[in-house]
Amino acid sequence: MSKAIFYHAGCPVCISAEQSELEALDQKRFDIEIVHLGEDIFRIDEAEQAGVKSVPALLLDDAVFHINFGAEISELK
Amino acid sequence: MSKAIFYHAGCPVCISAEQSELEALDQKRFDIEIVHLGEDIFRIDEAEQAGVKSVPALLLDDAVFHINFGAEISELK
Repeated sequence: MSKAIFYHAGCPVCISAEQSELEALDQKRFDIEIVHLGEDIFRIDEAEQAGVKSVPALLLDDAVFHINFGAEISELK
Repeated sequence: MSKAIFYHAGCPVCISAEQSELEALDQKRFDIEIVHLGEDIFRIDEAEQAGVKSVPALLLDDAVFHINFGAEISELK
């Protein structure tokens, strides 16, 4: 099963993306994890190392997709 | 069945998004159309009216998701 991680920060743009975009993924093939970087700030380093520059972002295996624009990751620190 | 339209312009960022992001969609629930706006320039108006501001972009029903950044739609005209 592939891993999909959705990083967000609770912003309106993030929530909109979460609802539509995650719902559209093939749930049979993806193990989906949702990470709120505003709350789980200890995971910001991990997100940055994966290539996340802004939220909301979707990590599909090793590929990062920045979806629309909610906030710079540097603003969450 | 829901409609998903992926608008792109053949750029490297577009192709990367197409391969990973579209492949991740639930193909049983989405009728997926891929539109190359650099070739089908007559569809630029339609894309703009749907809210597309840059490519690559994914339209899921009525929601537009700008995925990473390849080019401004104005550059394709």
